[in-house]
Amino acid sequence: MPRLKLTLAYVGTAYSGWQIQEKPSPPLTVQGELERALAIVCGRAVRVFGAGRTDAGAHAEGQVAHCDVPALRAVNWRAALNVKLPPDIRVLDAREVADRFHACFDARKKIYRYDLWFSRRVVPPRLHPFVWDCGSLNLPQLEAALPLLTGMHDFKSFQNRGTAVRDTVRTVLSLTAAYPAEFGGEVLSLHVEADGFLKQMARNMTGLLVAVGQGKFDPARIPALLAAHERAQGPPTAPAHGLTLVSVDYGGNDACPV
Amino acid sequence: MPRLKLTLAYVGTAYSGWQIQEKPSPPLTVQGELERALAIVCGRAVRVFGAGRTDAGAHAEGQVAHCDVPALRAVNWRAALNVKLPPDIRVLDAREVADRFHACFDARKKIYRYDLWFSRRVVPPRLHPFVWDCGSLNLPQLEAALPLLTGMHDFKSFQNRGTAVRDTVRTVLSLTAAYPAEFGGEVLSLHVEADGFLKQMARNMTGLLVAVGQGKFDPARIPALLAAHERAQGPPTAPAHGLTLVSVDYGGNDACPV
Repeated sequence: MPRLKLTLAYVGTAYSGWQIQEKPSPPLTVQGELERALAIVCGRAVRVFGAGRTDAGAHAEGQVAHCDVPALRAVNWRAALNVKLPPDIRVLDAREVADRFHACFDARKKIYRYDLWFSRRVVPPRLHPFVWDCGSLNLPQLEAALPLLTGMHDFKSFQNRGTAVRDTVRTVLSLTAAYPAEFGGEVLSLHVEADGFLKQMARNMTGLLVAVGQGKFDPARIPALLAAHERAQGPPTAPAHGLTLVSVDYGGNDACPV
Repeated sequence: MPRLKLTLAYVGTAYSGWQIQEKPSPPLTVQGELERALAIVCGRAVRVFGAGRTDAGAHAEGQVAHCDVPALRAVNWRAALNVKLPPDIRVLDAREVADRFHACFDARKKIYRYDLWFSRRVVPPRLHPFVWDCGSLNLPQLEAALPLLTGMHDFKSFQNRGTAVRDTVRTVLSLTAAYPAEFGGEVLSLHVEADGFLKQMARNMTGLLVAVGQGKFDPARIPALLAAHERAQGPPTAPAHGLTLVSVDYGGNDACPV
């Protein structure tokens, strides 16, 4: 039974996150829509495993998932699935991989982007679903705090409740700020690359950095916040809709089976 | 009673166009949402007059409207209305104008943009509500046809049914193609500037140009199409969701009253 690696982009606005929720009237989820499309194409139920669970309202430009499908002849999986998926979920790439490949367990690192609207101008309606309108920010102060969150740390103070993870040490490989020209210098894009993310860690890092940029949290307190291992000592979590999963890296473990 | 000139941006996806529809269960419209917000802020019904009616699903970055409001003290109209409007409709600017100003009758010219996705790659979900995925195009052939639609013509062959307009002569002041860098050269933006537009004229011009780019309509036939004064001889109308009203120009007739 061939194993497929799917690379996905979606606008998360209409969805209650990635993961299927087993409820009497289940809400729309990205995984649910994908399994619905796969069931139509394959003629039977297909379970999908994602690289990670994105939150309700969060987006993806390069989410990865795997699934085992029947050995159908000459199916263009990308095209076949896109016909059955809603237009806010797209399969960018579909390829056969070795059957030991696992979208979650084999992930070596992930990149998230968080987009902040820090201008006093009105947020353009097209951008509204994708940026956090957080008001004006002290950008040099915010940028100066980035190195304090980079490197290997116990990020327990940046983990929200809801998952039982034993090891809360993660390595933030890079944390950088950019001001994309296409948004006229009114959007600050935070890029976070790490070997793994705790629950809502990217949003909690953003919440902290925005509090620093607003002068509400002294960056000198960041080492103490990390050492406290306690979420309650940090500023509020940034809203989900500013967050985009950019890519998942497998370090070559996602090679073709042949 | 002060007259306000409002400049508006909206994502039209959720709306049945600009204009209020008097029906038993009226659909969502941009004008309807704006009048609802004005009624809350003003404490009474306020009628809004737009520069033009945008179609269901079409967007705006610079629609203009006027309305007469009670002389309230020190209202920040932009901020007050934006609080009451949904986030896909934004007031970009609100200013008092002379009470002879009329958003529709005083308009000297309008600019529309139509965005075409001509790449073979999958349309990114973020762009899907804003571009027509029209497949590959012969771009030099399409661009060569632009001058044939520029200038003063009777555009009756580009007018859809539904309005009784006596004079169907309009002047297309400019019609140009651009390839915005932010979309990686996969989007062709048609910019049309004219002293006025007939019903669905911008969409019919786009439909023709795409047919030319697809090799389905010989550009040598464009003069005959204009001369025919008959819509049925032209290719299909381009879908509304690729269209954006960029701006409305009043040639200085929208100056402040003082």
